[in-house]
Amino acid sequence: MSARLRQIHRIEDLGPEGCLELATLATRLRRHPEPRALEGKVLALLFLSPSLRTQASFQAAMTRLGGGSFVIAPDRFIHKLEFDPDRVMDGAAAENVAEALPVLAAYGDAIGVRAFAGLENLAEDLADRRFEAIRRFCGAPFLNMESAIRHPCQSLGDWLTLDDLEIPARGGRFVLSWAQHTKALPLAVASDTLRMAAMRGMEVTVLRPEAFELPEPIMSQARALARASGGSVRETSDRAEAMKGAHVLYAKSWASTRCYGDHAATAELRRGLTGWTVAEDWFAGARPDCRFLHCLPVRRGVVVEGAVLDGPRSEVVQQAENRMWAQMAALHRMLA
Amino acid sequence: MSARLRQIHRIEDLGPEGCLELATLATRLRRHPEPRALEGKVLALLFLSPSLRTQASFQAAMTRLGGGSFVIAPDRFIHKLEFDPDRVMDGAAAENVAEALPVLAAYGDAIGVRAFAGLENLAEDLADRRFEAIRRFCGAPFLNMESAIRHPCQSLGDWLTLDDLEIPARGGRFVLSWAQHTKALPLAVASDTLRMAAMRGMEVTVLRPEAFELPEPIMSQARALARASGGSVRETSDRAEAMKGAHVLYAKSWASTRCYGDHAATAELRRGLTGWTVAEDWFAGARPDCRFLHCLPVRRGVVVEGAVLDGPRSEVVQQAENRMWAQMAALHRMLA
Amino acid sequence: MSARLRQIHRIEDLGPEGCLELATLATRLRRHPEPRALEGKVLALLFLSPSLRTQASFQAAMTRLGGGSFVIAPDRFIHKLEFDPDRVMDGAAAENVAEALPVLAAYGDAIGVRAFAGLENLAEDLADRRFEAIRRFCGAPFLNMESAIRHPCQSLGDWLTLDDLEIPARGGRFVLSWAQHTKALPLAVASDTLRMAAMRGMEVTVLRPEAFELPEPIMSQARALARASGGSVRETSDRAEAMKGAHVLYAKSWASTRCYGDHAATAELRRGLTGWTVAEDWFAGARPDCRFLHCLPVRRGVVVEGAVLDGPRSEVVQQAENRMWAQMAALHRMLA
Repeated sequence: MSARLRQIHRIEDLGPEGCLELATLATRLRRHPEPRALEGKVLALLFLSPSLRTQASFQAAMTRLGGGSFVIAPDRFIHKLEFDPDRVMDGAAAENVAEALPVLAAYGDAIGVRAFAGLENLAEDLADRRFEAIRRFCGAPFLNMESAIRHPCQSLGDWLTLDDLEIPARGGRFVLSWAQHTKALPLAVASDTLRMAAMRGMEVTVLRPEAFELPEPIMSQARALARASGGSVRETSDRAEAMKGAHVLYAKSWASTRCYGDHAATAELRRGLTGWTVAEDWFAGARPDCRFLHCLPVRRGVVVEGAVLDGPRSEVVQQAENRMWAQMAALHRMLA
Repeated sequence: MSARLRQIHRIEDLGPEGCLELATLATRLRRHPEPRALEGKVLALLFLSPSLRTQASFQAAMTRLGGGSFVIAPDRFIHKLEFDPDRVMDGAAAENVAEALPVLAAYGDAIGVRAFAGLENLAEDLADRRFEAIRRFCGAPFLNMESAIRHPCQSLGDWLTLDDLEIPARGGRFVLSWAQHTKALPLAVASDTLRMAAMRGMEVTVLRPEAFELPEPIMSQARALARASGGSVRETSDRAEAMKGAHVLYAKSWASTRCYGDHAATAELRRGLTGWTVAEDWFAGARPDCRFLHCLPVRRGVVVEGAVLDGPRSEVVQQAENRMWAQMAALHRMLA
Repeated sequence: MSARLRQIHRIEDLGPEGCLELATLATRLRRHPEPRALEGKVLALLFLSPSLRTQASFQAAMTRLGGGSFVIAPDRFIHKLEFDPDRVMDGAAAENVAEALPVLAAYGDAIGVRAFAGLENLAEDLADRRFEAIRRFCGAPFLNMESAIRHPCQSLGDWLTLDDLEIPARGGRFVLSWAQHTKALPLAVASDTLRMAAMRGMEVTVLRPEAFELPEPIMSQARALARASGGSVRETSDRAEAMKGAHVLYAKSWASTRCYGDHAATAELRRGLTGWTVAEDWFAGARPDCRFLHCLPVRRGVVVEGAVLDGPRSEVVQQAENRMWAQMAALHRMLA
């Protein structure tokens, strides 16, 4: 990372060194504000999926560095956006990504884009098909603000949070657990969380019920990242085994990968599962100071009991705040 | 107010000295811009009810002081927001105020929140039940951008406007009048207007038809504030008596407090009232230079005749502009 | 233009000298950023019609000059906006332009307004009836962000693009061509494009099918502007004749002026037209380096073939980017 940072897209491309460097810069900016570092600089923010934390934290990040941002959400487009440059546009879509994206990118010094998973076809989402159709028109600097299978800004913030909490990288036990939900959710956060923990060299356990395995390409990539950093990755559906000696429980729901796209079947699977709402008794075998993390938004009483969220284990608010500091570091490295 | 200002919530907590100090600072900032006073500072703006002037004036205020802001409105939340931290969230709401508010507050150096009255239960609105459920999660610095029963930023701007117009504080005759409308409206502006005028030590008259009395707790608080400042507060439904020698007529509609929450009954009451659209002949017994104020938006021909709004008495545009200068003063005292 | 610029509304009022001066300043700002030129300055942006490029480019422009902006779109108004100050407002509209506009203008150091053509009555749209009803309440500095019959900021950006491309002003052959579409569109861009090219002193040809003539007042004004600058304006429906030796093809669809307001009849007219989708073979008789321009958004395969948009003739992305630089120049001349 000696050269200027060009994009935040594949967390694994940053590597442990890149993540560490950004976390260090984030810590410095949190302590020593630089309100003129990006004066006159513009961040273009394109949300093709809804956002609360991401919009707010990116807008706040630019302001804190002396620059600014603009937000484009789908309702600002005249009618709809077409993603296929070869389509004859005689329907509802009045604008094509082939024109819209280069223009928005040109108005900014950097552009961030969000487009959630389609949740219909696993192979397409794993290939990040729709997102890549957009990204090719964006140039650089570019920031992935959550695609079908990635959420690198979340993971950069989480890296910083693990540092803040002084969770050991080598030897630290990190549990990524599936949790109950009312809906089938994308794999993006789970995938990048796994990559991030693996890159830190932690002992990572993916805890999930049957039929909610993470896709093999994600698992094998994580195992390789862990090996390179001196860590490990394993999977289990045995909670007691997973939680033993854990430093961190990171909860997140995701769609079943066995019936991905079949939301009725997924809902049926979820209904059959009991005990996947995180509760205080999950932590019985963990380290006494085991922390609870979640990327938010979180459904109280479904994903996790309110008592855990309101108790001393929970770091979810600091974790969300750290999105801002980590993103400030990334923007600083891209634009200062 | 020697310490840094922590919140703008209860106008009476500022006291006459606090209001005067902010009006003085607002006047200074209007004359001598300080475009770097808040550089790198962020204001989080959360609108759970719609806004035109409030959003625009707060965003402009932060920019004029060299900082910035971000706006979160309900449509930016993924599904709906749950206000009860103890509810099992298996319905439409995907995020709880217990998480959302601390996070948004953390992205800003200050947070402003708007949530209108529910207009169903008077006791609940007087207790500002829903707003307090939000405010407890916000920390400080905090700004009330209109709750069920308060609109302190409006009143700070109005204080400045009365100063600009050189309306005497002691001995000035201030008439707060109910006016016609097509809907039952909250008590927020009327309540804080009454508190503000009382705190200035003015001779305040609340002019309203029967069944539109302001709630007794509001009236008695206003009487106490007036006593402390050497002013007075009275109520009447006699327009001629109320307007006699008036320096200012401040018009505002509000819901009937006798059938609060029963919108059909309130509408029936309103239909029975004639002559409650402010017209030039209202000012017959007032001082010749009596001014007309209203917080906007205002329905022409319903609340007030267009001729009054377009005539020399009306100060409604300057009054709305003063929102910005007063808020700049508050933000300066909170964050500079 | 020795005095401070007061408004961008009628492109012809700027004159060729004014346009040239702004293009020159735009070029300077593109090369030499001035991130403190407008510190503490605010641009109010009111969109009564949707926007992508205009919002983004104006917000980016203000940030690049060190100031900021706020955006008000119709959904931010409480209910609806009434345009007639004399109407008794007992319907859905809760706010009148007579109050809303002066207030928004007061929050900004300048205000920009967008309100598209009604597309029902040609005389009303040519007189810019609704827009003028708004503009009279805005004061100055003021920017027209597209009215029924004008889009001067687009034309200022286009002037800069023609300069960038080194298209000769005197003697350059500029073809403004009607193109296919799925809808009847306003005359705004076509009208100001014609005025702009005429003011440069170019040899301008309006290429359009029968029934899509531009209104005579627009044509005769353009002829006068061309005469004053040593250029010419002609109309034809013969493509080969129009394109002969052309330096630039500027495509844009617009409503039929023969059955303006009758959208079914216009659609019927459009269906009868073949060959009005711009394709590579249109350029057979043009200069080999003839450029393609369009203001965007553009429907691929309807207005123009994707191959043209993706080929070397197309300058539509640079053209859209130039909106920002041209608007920065205008804001600089208004507010610095």
